[in-house]
Amino acid sequence: MIDPSSISPDSATQRTIGTVAIRWHGHQLELLDQRLLPEEERWLAMTDATGVADCIRDMVVRGAPAIGISAAYGVALAARSLMEETWREALAEAVAVLAASRPTAVNLFWALRRMETVAGSCETLVEAQQRLTEAAEAIHAEDLAANLAMADHALSVMDEDKPFSVLTHCNTGALATGGYGTALGVIRRLHETGRLERVYADETRPWLQGSRLTAWELSREGVPVTLNADGAAAWIMAQGSVRWVIVGADRITANGDVANKIGTYSLAVLARHHGIRFMVVAPSSTVDMTLASGTEIPIEEREGTEVKQIRGAVLAPESVDVFNPVFDVTPASLIDAIVTEQGVIEQPDAERMAKVFLPG
Amino acid sequence: MIDPSSISPDSATQRTIGTVAIRWHGHQLELLDQRLLPEEERWLAMTDATGVADCIRDMVVRGAPAIGISAAYGVALAARSLMEETWREALAEAVAVLAASRPTAVNLFWALRRMETVAGSCETLVEAQQRLTEAAEAIHAEDLAANLAMADHALSVMDEDKPFSVLTHCNTGALATGGYGTALGVIRRLHETGRLERVYADETRPWLQGSRLTAWELSREGVPVTLNADGAAAWIMAQGSVRWVIVGADRITANGDVANKIGTYSLAVLARHHGIRFMVVAPSSTVDMTLASGTEIPIEEREGTEVKQIRGAVLAPESVDVFNPVFDVTPASLIDAIVTEQGVIEQPDAERMAKVFLPG
Repeated sequence: MIDPSSISPDSATQRTIGTVAIRWHGHQLELLDQRLLPEEERWLAMTDATGVADCIRDMVVRGAPAIGISAAYGVALAARSLMEETWREALAEAVAVLAASRPTAVNLFWALRRMETVAGSCETLVEAQQRLTEAAEAIHAEDLAANLAMADHALSVMDEDKPFSVLTHCNTGALATGGYGTALGVIRRLHETGRLERVYADETRPWLQGSRLTAWELSREGVPVTLNADGAAAWIMAQGSVRWVIVGADRITANGDVANKIGTYSLAVLARHHGIRFMVVAPSSTVDMTLASGTEIPIEEREGTEVKQIRGAVLAPESVDVFNPVFDVTPASLIDAIVTEQGVIEQPDAERMAKVFLPG
Repeated sequence: MIDPSSISPDSATQRTIGTVAIRWHGHQLELLDQRLLPEEERWLAMTDATGVADCIRDMVVRGAPAIGISAAYGVALAARSLMEETWREALAEAVAVLAASRPTAVNLFWALRRMETVAGSCETLVEAQQRLTEAAEAIHAEDLAANLAMADHALSVMDEDKPFSVLTHCNTGALATGGYGTALGVIRRLHETGRLERVYADETRPWLQGSRLTAWELSREGVPVTLNADGAAAWIMAQGSVRWVIVGADRITANGDVANKIGTYSLAVLARHHGIRFMVVAPSSTVDMTLASGTEIPIEEREGTEVKQIRGAVLAPESVDVFNPVFDVTPASLIDAIVTEQGVIEQPDAERMAKVFLPG
């Protein structure tokens, strides 16, 4: 028999919420290499900020909240190897390396700012090492708690009186977050409470987060999932069983516009055409009140090889031009509900966003 | 309009219109194996109807018009190996085998009916062998001529006063037809006449006809093409340079509804949202006036492995459920123009369709 008190926070977390993609061991960060799923579950161990930045840029870890958490641990790791005389400058350099890893997800910058604030209030390196580790652990734990709270809030506005199907895009589950998931957390909760008929998962080209990650995560937990090509989503909506499209976010601006995985905007337009409601689920760290609207969000473009090749197989002529934006922007006018751990904003606009995120 | 009898379906065709995917040598049909493009150009030689049916089912050859042409040659090949006493029954069997190869594209059944009519009017096997060969060659030549005529018709309704971009889906070019292409023929013609800025090609999951075939075909002919993931089409439309979405069709019903590659319906909804016009280009052999509307079209579903794997690479958990319809149906109300070799039907409906396709 296992003594419950002997369960480490890691294993307790895993028991409570299933799959995790980020493991912290105090002196070392372990990241599940999401590039290899679903074929292989390989964990990579990181002991410095550069290694963590590489993992973010190369998409070992992805998903806005998971990127923020990993970056925070990266700062904590950096602090462990510094010298007393130069630690402030060296830590700032480590933060800069992490900040340069990816441009769109605002959680990354939010987490780094929070870590910088903690560092700025420390008198000594020893104090910084201790408090930065605690701060990273807090960011991690708060993200998980936020996900559980978001699931509660989301279900309160879903008034369907019998089980229904939903459609989702990309991966917003345990793999993309501190655990449980944002949009996928809501879908998990629907399943746990007997309200989910089926989730349709867009495969989500080019990186196939839907087929490689969401289908993997939901299958192993017994959630009824059907995988589809992105181009089939409209046809699925036309069949009538889908009542909500539920997605995550990489950045939400002051007027309620949402940057999220390429293909999200398409789903929002299609959902509106079919009278299907559209929900965005993300922690409040995703909200960027410094940007007035989505036109101000920098949209990352990645290499065309992501579209032209899959695992070395050539899918297109090598020389052909490719447009490969990683994200698109969905205007607030197409969104029925933005859910954060602070509650639900229905029919979001600048005024309703300000009420929650610019209090006082 | 070009006199079909002036076009030879083999070498002359290749000189005139560039890429071809079907070569006829009298006793043998050669098909370019489209499963291997763009990595390899391998031609498969067929000498009987079963071989041709296998090629259609296994997608060595694809595209509604190319399927119809190949099936016609399959009947001609079948006639060459029959015995005088039993040729009518044996030919009917060959037709049945070909008809069972794929369910959605109506050109297949149209071509087979036309071949059956020819066979029914023949007195002897020798006569049938001769006339079935001529009939297949005629179907091939007429398809090419129809494509050239469709390009003329299509351009007459495109009233943009300066070069513009278009977006297309799947492959509707030389590879999908007797040559030149339907939707891609229109795009070729726009390029030839200096009216094309750029064509965005959806990669078209799961079979990747856009990246493997359209990008290959257009690149080698110097047409400016940009490849994109299907989920990026809406975001491209939002950028403003695309004025027309131009696609082919696998079946058009009496009210103007259109069955075409999965993802087409999505584009039609998105185009309407963005004020972009939507054109369907297909030979009149694609029109099925026996079906009142698109709800009556049988929609082929193929194996989930097409979504879960690419060239042997595992993209999703093996056990996960997949919805893999090959086609969807776009309602006539979302279509601005249906173009056949007989002309353009703008804002198609049952009445306008009947005027052209139920004359008298």
